[in-house]
Amino acid sequence: MTAEILQLLSTTKVSGGELRKYKFKSAALGGLDSNFNIFLPPQALDGVNKVPLLVYLAGLTCTEDNGAQKAGFFIPASAKGIGLLFPDTSPRGAGIEGEDADWDFGTGAGFYLNATNPKFAKNYNMLTHVTLELPQVIGAAGLPIDLARQSIFGHSMGGHGALTLYLASKTNQYRSASAFSPICNPVNCPWGQKAFDGYLQGGVKEAAIQYDATELVKNRVEPVNILVDFGTGDNFYKQGQLLPENFLKAARDSGHDESQVQVRSQGGYDHSYYFISTFAADHVNFHAQFL
Amino acid sequence: MTAEILQLLSTTKVSGGELRKYKFKSAALGGLDSNFNIFLPPQALDGVNKVPLLVYLAGLTCTEDNGAQKAGFFIPASAKGIGLLFPDTSPRGAGIEGEDADWDFGTGAGFYLNATNPKFAKNYNMLTHVTLELPQVIGAAGLPIDLARQSIFGHSMGGHGALTLYLASKTNQYRSASAFSPICNPVNCPWGQKAFDGYLQGGVKEAAIQYDATELVKNRVEPVNILVDFGTGDNFYKQGQLLPENFLKAARDSGHDESQVQVRSQGGYDHSYYFISTFAADHVNFHAQFL
Repeated sequence: MTAEILQLLSTTKVSGGELRKYKFKSAALGGLDSNFNIFLPPQALDGVNKVPLLVYLAGLTCTEDNGAQKAGFFIPASAKGIGLLFPDTSPRGAGIEGEDADWDFGTGAGFYLNATNPKFAKNYNMLTHVTLELPQVIGAAGLPIDLARQSIFGHSMGGHGALTLYLASKTNQYRSASAFSPICNPVNCPWGQKAFDGYLQGGVKEAAIQYDATELVKNRVEPVNILVDFGTGDNFYKQGQLLPENFLKAARDSGHDESQVQVRSQGGYDHSYYFISTFAADHVNFHAQFL
Repeated sequence: MTAEILQLLSTTKVSGGELRKYKFKSAALGGLDSNFNIFLPPQALDGVNKVPLLVYLAGLTCTEDNGAQKAGFFIPASAKGIGLLFPDTSPRGAGIEGEDADWDFGTGAGFYLNATNPKFAKNYNMLTHVTLELPQVIGAAGLPIDLARQSIFGHSMGGHGALTLYLASKTNQYRSASAFSPICNPVNCPWGQKAFDGYLQGGVKEAAIQYDATELVKNRVEPVNILVDFGTGDNFYKQGQLLPENFLKAARDSGHDESQVQVRSQGGYDHSYYFISTFAADHVNFHAQFL
């Protein structure tokens, strides 16, 4: 992987820093073109400093653009000197039969796992894409990011991704995790069951080992740094897709108290980016403590 | 105009306040359905207080949603206790031949004027819609807005709208005006010339009297409160569509010094909502001084 492989699509100044959009051929996604956005705060633009990286994983139907356009992360990230990485949510154009049939499976719905169902295993490897390939690409390109300091957050499906990638990391890749309206216990909700049945040979049983935040936190012994916000007006919460109470109970049962795991119920907020933008600074500032 | 005429389409909690989307049959727009968004900060939700109103006019191709979704106004507006009104940018579905042919004329491009060309005069009356009809509707609906305290701002075409509605008001309806990347001298730029030739019987000559901020400020004797930001990386600025220097010169020549008219050149920023979001708090705080 060399720097020339990265194609710079655009550079946009925002909040004193730069938002850059790149494209590259992703080996993890089976050789397909994949885009990402990366925000470099002003502290990273002096040609000397490197800044830590906060990875934002977006939700179902989103791309690398939604968080950049609507979440309101840039002002607090500039204030704290933190870079932001916005990956896409799935491979694009794999051409697998049925991948565009539903909004909650396939394109735009990669669930941040590595598929084991042979039908999807060549392309649907967002876990490797986010945790391994994008850091390699960023490092090889010489971007002013200190990859030894990473944290991760996300929204909905991306909140699931942030919590599971954080908790399942064998190398403690991320120093902290936070999530807006995350899918906290996907083996027990329709979205998760559908995704795991499709992507994984072992279905929800396979998923429980590695891809379910509630299951993962049950077995977590080391201390953690986790913040979760969800809105009580969120229809997906009401429908039982998010199940934050399950995650909170599992965290407490396994000895992670409020200093390690905060799950905050925010009265009246829904599932949208209006909710995210309201608490954007809270989350960036939470991660800044550890970065 | 009675309150029942307003149809509430959605209510979304954001930054401690409420974003409400309404629909109504707009007499000013020839009886067509028109939408607007209004943000009520927490200070307006106690059933007692009324808050001042800051009107945001969006640019070409936008709707009532762009500013709400991307501009980042809610956190500073909540902090200052200011309501925000987001009108649409034109009538929708008038059915006039050619109105959907171009992105910079017709639908999505109302230019905040009242058309005098008979072809458009029934529907294209965004001036009356913004200055008279929407305040009437808001007042009749009993929304907690103090209509005696209004200011106005906008982006690009909407910056043109904000500056001209402020400067041309015979009743000093707005206490202050600000703009991001405004079209400052539309009689001298292609966008403005095309719009005025289409909407106005008298074309740019008619426009110069009432719809050109640079012309208006030349004849302005009373003090003004105006803030303008534009980006030096803005391609429309480079192409001569915005002409902020013309506005600044006219303001200074007519005796409005820096305490009255600020025109700030922001290095490297483009024409997008990333630019707006960067300076969103600056603009809301500017207006808060007068509201």
